[in-house]
Amino acid sequence: MTTKYVHLFTEGNKDQKDLLGGKGANLAEMTNAGLPVPPGFTISTDACRHYYKNGEKVPVELDKQMMDALKNVEKQTGKEFGGENPLLVSVRSGAKFSMPGMMDTVLNLGLNDTTVLALEKKSKNPRFAWDSYRRFIQMFSDVVLEIHVNHFEELLHNMKEKHKYKTDLDLTANDLKELVMQYKALVRKNLGKDFPSDPVEQLRMSRDAVFKSWNSDRAIIYRRLHDIPHDLGTAVNIQSMVFGNLGDDSGTGVAFTRDPANGDNVFYGEFLVNAQGEDVVAGIRTPQPIIEMKKVFPPMYDELVAVRKKLEHHYHDMQDFEFTIEQGTLYMLQTRNGKRTAKAAVKIAVDMEHEGLVSQEQALLMVDPNALNQLLHKTFDPKHKYNALTKGLAASPGAAVGKVVFNAETAKLWAEGGHKVILVRIETSPEDIQGMVSSQGILTTRGGTTSHAAVVARGMGKCCVAGAGDIRVNEKEKFFEVSNQVIKEGDLISLNGTTGEVIMGAVPTVDPAISGEFKTLMEWADKTRRLEVRTNADTPKDAQIALNFGAQGIGLCRTEHMFFEGDRITAMREMILADSTEGRKKALSKLLPYQREDFFGLFKVMTGKPVIVRFLDPPLHEFLPKTDKEIEELSEQINVSVKKIKETIEDLHEFNPMLGFRGCRLGVVYPEISSMQAQAIFEAAIEAKNKGFTPVPEIEVPNVISVNEFKLIKNLILEQAKATGAEGKIKYKIGTMIEFPRAAFIADDLAHEAEFMSFGTNDLTQTTLGFSRDDVAKFIGVYIDKGIFDRDPFQAIDQHGVGRVMQMAVEKARSVKSDLDIGICGEHGGEPSSVEFCHRIGLSNVSCSPYRVPIARLAAAQAVIREKQAFSKSKK
Amino acid sequence: MTTKYVHLFTEGNKDQKDLLGGKGANLAEMTNAGLPVPPGFTISTDACRHYYKNGEKVPVELDKQMMDALKNVEKQTGKEFGGENPLLVSVRSGAKFSMPGMMDTVLNLGLNDTTVLALEKKSKNPRFAWDSYRRFIQMFSDVVLEIHVNHFEELLHNMKEKHKYKTDLDLTANDLKELVMQYKALVRKNLGKDFPSDPVEQLRMSRDAVFKSWNSDRAIIYRRLHDIPHDLGTAVNIQSMVFGNLGDDSGTGVAFTRDPANGDNVFYGEFLVNAQGEDVVAGIRTPQPIIEMKKVFPPMYDELVAVRKKLEHHYHDMQDFEFTIEQGTLYMLQTRNGKRTAKAAVKIAVDMEHEGLVSQEQALLMVDPNALNQLLHKTFDPKHKYNALTKGLAASPGAAVGKVVFNAETAKLWAEGGHKVILVRIETSPEDIQGMVSSQGILTTRGGTTSHAAVVARGMGKCCVAGAGDIRVNEKEKFFEVSNQVIKEGDLISLNGTTGEVIMGAVPTVDPAISGEFKTLMEWADKTRRLEVRTNADTPKDAQIALNFGAQGIGLCRTEHMFFEGDRITAMREMILADSTEGRKKALSKLLPYQREDFFGLFKVMTGKPVIVRFLDPPLHEFLPKTDKEIEELSEQINVSVKKIKETIEDLHEFNPMLGFRGCRLGVVYPEISSMQAQAIFEAAIEAKNKGFTPVPEIEVPNVISVNEFKLIKNLILEQAKATGAEGKIKYKIGTMIEFPRAAFIADDLAHEAEFMSFGTNDLTQTTLGFSRDDVAKFIGVYIDKGIFDRDPFQAIDQHGVGRVMQMAVEKARSVKSDLDIGICGEHGGEPSSVEFCHRIGLSNVSCSPYRVPIARLAAAQAVIREKQAFSKSKK
Repeated sequence: MTTKYVHLFTEGNKDQKDLLGGKGANLAEMTNAGLPVPPGFTISTDACRHYYKNGEKVPVELDKQMMDALKNVEKQTGKEFGGENPLLVSVRSGAKFSMPGMMDTVLNLGLNDTTVLALEKKSKNPRFAWDSYRRFIQMFSDVVLEIHVNHFEELLHNMKEKHKYKTDLDLTANDLKELVMQYKALVRKNLGKDFPSDPVEQLRMSRDAVFKSWNSDRAIIYRRLHDIPHDLGTAVNIQSMVFGNLGDDSGTGVAFTRDPANGDNVFYGEFLVNAQGEDVVAGIRTPQPIIEMKKVFPPMYDELVAVRKKLEHHYHDMQDFEFTIEQGTLYMLQTRNGKRTAKAAVKIAVDMEHEGLVSQEQALLMVDPNALNQLLHKTFDPKHKYNALTKGLAASPGAAVGKVVFNAETAKLWAEGGHKVILVRIETSPEDIQGMVSSQGILTTRGGTTSHAAVVARGMGKCCVAGAGDIRVNEKEKFFEVSNQVIKEGDLISLNGTTGEVIMGAVPTVDPAISGEFKTLMEWADKTRRLEVRTNADTPKDAQIALNFGAQGIGLCRTEHMFFEGDRITAMREMILADSTEGRKKALSKLLPYQREDFFGLFKVMTGKPVIVRFLDPPLHEFLPKTDKEIEELSEQINVSVKKIKETIEDLHEFNPMLGFRGCRLGVVYPEISSMQAQAIFEAAIEAKNKGFTPVPEIEVPNVISVNEFKLIKNLILEQAKATGAEGKIKYKIGTMIEFPRAAFIADDLAHEAEFMSFGTNDLTQTTLGFSRDDVAKFIGVYIDKGIFDRDPFQAIDQHGVGRVMQMAVEKARSVKSDLDIGICGEHGGEPSSVEFCHRIGLSNVSCSPYRVPIARLAAAQAVIREKQAFSKSKK
Repeated sequence: MTTKYVHLFTEGNKDQKDLLGGKGANLAEMTNAGLPVPPGFTISTDACRHYYKNGEKVPVELDKQMMDALKNVEKQTGKEFGGENPLLVSVRSGAKFSMPGMMDTVLNLGLNDTTVLALEKKSKNPRFAWDSYRRFIQMFSDVVLEIHVNHFEELLHNMKEKHKYKTDLDLTANDLKELVMQYKALVRKNLGKDFPSDPVEQLRMSRDAVFKSWNSDRAIIYRRLHDIPHDLGTAVNIQSMVFGNLGDDSGTGVAFTRDPANGDNVFYGEFLVNAQGEDVVAGIRTPQPIIEMKKVFPPMYDELVAVRKKLEHHYHDMQDFEFTIEQGTLYMLQTRNGKRTAKAAVKIAVDMEHEGLVSQEQALLMVDPNALNQLLHKTFDPKHKYNALTKGLAASPGAAVGKVVFNAETAKLWAEGGHKVILVRIETSPEDIQGMVSSQGILTTRGGTTSHAAVVARGMGKCCVAGAGDIRVNEKEKFFEVSNQVIKEGDLISLNGTTGEVIMGAVPTVDPAISGEFKTLMEWADKTRRLEVRTNADTPKDAQIALNFGAQGIGLCRTEHMFFEGDRITAMREMILADSTEGRKKALSKLLPYQREDFFGLFKVMTGKPVIVRFLDPPLHEFLPKTDKEIEELSEQINVSVKKIKETIEDLHEFNPMLGFRGCRLGVVYPEISSMQAQAIFEAAIEAKNKGFTPVPEIEVPNVISVNEFKLIKNLILEQAKATGAEGKIKYKIGTMIEFPRAAFIADDLAHEAEFMSFGTNDLTQTTLGFSRDDVAKFIGVYIDKGIFDRDPFQAIDQHGVGRVMQMAVEKARSVKSDLDIGICGEHGGEPSSVEFCHRIGLSNVSCSPYRVPIARLAAAQAVIREKQAFSKSKK
């Protein structure tokens, strides 16, 4: 059987985007919805995939199928391709997802020295005919022959100069004829041969150029930025031309069914009289607002208003469409779901539900959860334009303006002095936490979007640009260099955490505004979702922010951040440097009151809600001083020799700290650490209870890989529950993290002992893939470019790899305890595709940084709806 | 139902070691084999486990069961415990595996001030009675009451001094009576109360002391050293006493049915006239060779010779047994499989097969594969005693003597000057390879048994002691310190790679001798095994050694070691520092001839046998210079600025290099590296073929985690196969390593593309468990001590974790290609329990360092036999 590569618009519908691309499917849909669409057909994405699989050759049967379809169009329009009443066509690319990186359009295809005369005769408008021909040569040459449009614009410009014309409209038919000659000469010079005159050859060349444009550099970069798979291919749409430039009863325009900037239910768009569509898009002439059409073309305006309504009723979404009026007749050229700001997306979804256009479930699906980020952070004033110095990774959204500082100490000092500062580091470490707190934003030159700086910044809801590799920082001499500019301590810079841009000077910012529709949408999401949404928070302040954003508990309180402030770090270091259990216990007893206070604060804010407290996780060397100066200070403070401190630092040095002496391994070797933490948790809970709060502690053991290991730590905790008197008084749970594949493989055994589980998907991704999240930046870009991964596995769960490990663990664990609480607290817990995956494999909760809680809530609701849709589809 | 904790000897057999312990099972077996065993019973290991599970309390029913059994023994012997004709018993510990760390024996239990008189009367030998009593108090006090034997020996010594006696035999009954008084006073002083006089109390206390001794420090250390699980528990054997010290018609002895040192089929042992068994064991009196019994006790000697034969026929193994002659009657006290040297083990196994005592399969099971190590390396002369300076990990067996050097350069220089050197480093890196080659042995203070030094040393068959943490090395000033001693460059030391000991000065060594029986045994193993055994070898020299040891191919040729010599490292560095693909290609073209030559050498030696060549694996930073001096030299050599080199070093720095930019990731980002390696392999193969050899290259892609990634590298290889003309001319395969869990999870997808697979169990262990093999030494000891792991997972495959990952991968891969070659090339490939596991999950081959090839061959054969046994058991 021959594959059908060519589909008439009358044969398709909007669900065939995979095959026909977005544009083709919509043209078919519009055609069949009774909208006035100029006849045409679509060459499928199958043909494009065939093209790339076969060394850039189209299928043999394609030409015949294309010519058959063209015959059909000739019949529908009563015109003839290359004939006396010449059929002219447009050729447009159209992939499943809209992609500005690709070849867009060739118009007026079919013209040559013969047909132009036929057109002249037929239209009785020589100027129109030669202008169309001129435009066609220019466009075809630009997008198919790759001769830059500027060369043609220059000739056009010269012609106008010569005649002192003001606009293109002043050009006469003869001028245009002369220009056509010049254009063709230009092509001959550049190409070494004549401009192709055979319409069928023109058509074939344009089609192949569309296929080729799928893998242009721009297209590849665009796909990478927008997480579009590289193997989809594009379709090609071939459609009979209609002309908006046939006189003052003609025109063209672009419109949105609602305002894409704020979502208001007003007709929004613009049009040009006596013009082709690309004049609107290209911005060469200034178009008029759509409302003006009421005066210029009253009947067509009414018709358009009816089309607007019809489109929204047909598509149940805001549409972005192009139209042309040819001598008083309205034609629809294309429609698609309109791009919109987050604010508009939320308003349109809620309004449409209120208007009865969509159901609540449909409304929930209309908002991209990631877009909510825009609503939750400061942003740069969109009215202000700027040039970026350089670009790093968009590690934590928001906008920040401040003076550059190069260490945490200065950050704190300057902030206390009332300055806004931006902390610039090669990479941050837990010691920088205070400096990060004091800063408006963080800029690092190393590390990816899950590096220390990025994770902590997101947790704080603080703007962060990470891994800005073009910058060379000299922390010692306090300056950084980028593109031959030197920025010194105290210089003002701005960071755009949403794009990764670093800007010299201060860019004005605007505060986030959460509208009433946003609240409504979130309420609908909460009614719909099954997944509980918790937050990763280490302080009462963060916990309160998360509560405001709708968090239902704390899914991860990291206790290590608690050991870096003031006296704590000294006691912590004393503990690490102690030679005996007694020495460690003595130092730990100094830490105990701090920990107790920390936990009390959390239990108070989170009263009645579960709080997962994870035991100390990082390797001990992270707590030790780095510089000679710090070492000497510590030596004096705790009366341990510099030599001993240096030896300990050397002893604790690790080749691969991620796989080292950390997590519950610390508690196995030094049980007194875990005991102190358990004691602090229980004592804080008792205190909270005594003061009228309802603490719900859930104690979490990190890095578990063996049942015996978990039992050992669990026993230490149970001992403290008894010793503190919490047993019987405080409702608590003891659970385990699943961070290494071995834990997943023994999840059934662990389920016998653990009262809850939580996936640490950062570590699980690191070990399942053998990727260090701090080092992966070196090659992950190439991996995505070469199509090995679709996305960075530290941003979205690698479902085919890490996802399978998780699914296996869930199945094993639930085979033992069918109602076991299983959550996720890695960075993925606030990423929509990952949240949906977590829903699908049956997790109980997701936990994410406070600022991502609304995103997770919406994503969790969408997961339910999509699952329902898939189920009802599978039943059909 | 009450648990039966007490078993009469008549009720058990040798297969009940789990329940009765080795000693108890053997006593029962001997009893039922009709050997003259004094009556008795065994308290099971169940009782010991109960004891530890219940806060060191014995089961309530135990006392009654014990007293019932005692009644039975009274009946059999016609004696009465604590009565007129007093029954005396021995109490011995007896775990499943013989454990010298535990309480051994209490003899003559049942004696007190009353029964000693009854014994005196009954035996008509006051001296014997009081001597027995004295011995009992001494022994009971030592092992049950924990009053050190030295105190008693001192009183004994004083008594002999006082009377100027030469030996114990000179003591009179009165002397002994006096000694008993002194002993009891000593006990009272130490204990604060009287020596227990109630025989039943004595029995209970001894029994509980046996249980307690299971968790003595010595026992725990012993178990850890011998990989014995900590939860087995010990049994207690209670047996009626017989006396070898009732006069000159009595005696006692210990014998082996063959010579345990060399395996000769001669009766081997020693005996003492008029003595108790512990006199032989303790070495207090010098015993006579067993052959002398022929003269002293001719009938008993004949009887013993018959017993010897009976034992070997009954047990089908060489036995180590104790006997006592009581007034002319022979009693067997215990028998067990005799410990033997590796040499003896091999000879006994082969001899017994020849004698028809065992089948070939049984003979193969009689040799511990690990023991073969002793036959394959230099060892210290066992006649020479030494004191170790310190002890590290026994990383690579053998013995080495040489002058201490602290860097590879000096090692090479001194070795070229005719000196034997030992390279001492904090840790080695690939740059030290030449220095390691030049050294007799390697000593490091960091890193475990799978650290770089250990792995490379084993590969070279070179003695290595790793992770000797007590040593503090000053590489710069060229000395090391340990236990207050300073060893400087040039000082002589000796290393025992089999024990991990480091010795000051030169210890004499002996060369390995491989006897004819060893060859025979290996032939049997080869006939029996299903697993193919390959070797990890990077040079023709290593490959030749492995061939001599029976390797059937190369399972892993690491290509990175090839880049460290002379000009190569410079070209490698030039490649890394190149800014462009062209620059890299230029540098790679310098490396190509070296690589081609390396591979040609391997194909030549291995003609007709498969050679797996793994593509470049380690992160690039390993190849860059470390010191300023080296950087400056390189800068001059390749004309790249010092600044640029330092920046590259900084750029390539990784936080977790094990999870970093390495393996096929290098080839994905820099395809020219993989292409060069493929080209070198194919050109070498063609050259080898042209010269009459039969090259069988198998190209292996490391660190694969995605099918697309593998396909990408595979395509580069296929291109080179075509470009070099190898396609169609050379038989080759392209395969993948399975080193990260994700690869295991997609093994089915990979199997569609790969022609073979090989597990890299070092990396797989690291990522499955989240253990860095270079850092694990910090806590793995505690993990084993606390019973979380039984063994170091880098030494023996963690079957419950990593093993499950492997099994899943094999099942998935074979579901696609049922005959796919799957091997293992991690360090585990030469470890017997791991080899057996690999057989069980159906791998095709194992690969290990040359010196472990015979070990793997034997282990693979044993796996087949054990599987057959398990199968035939399951059929029963």
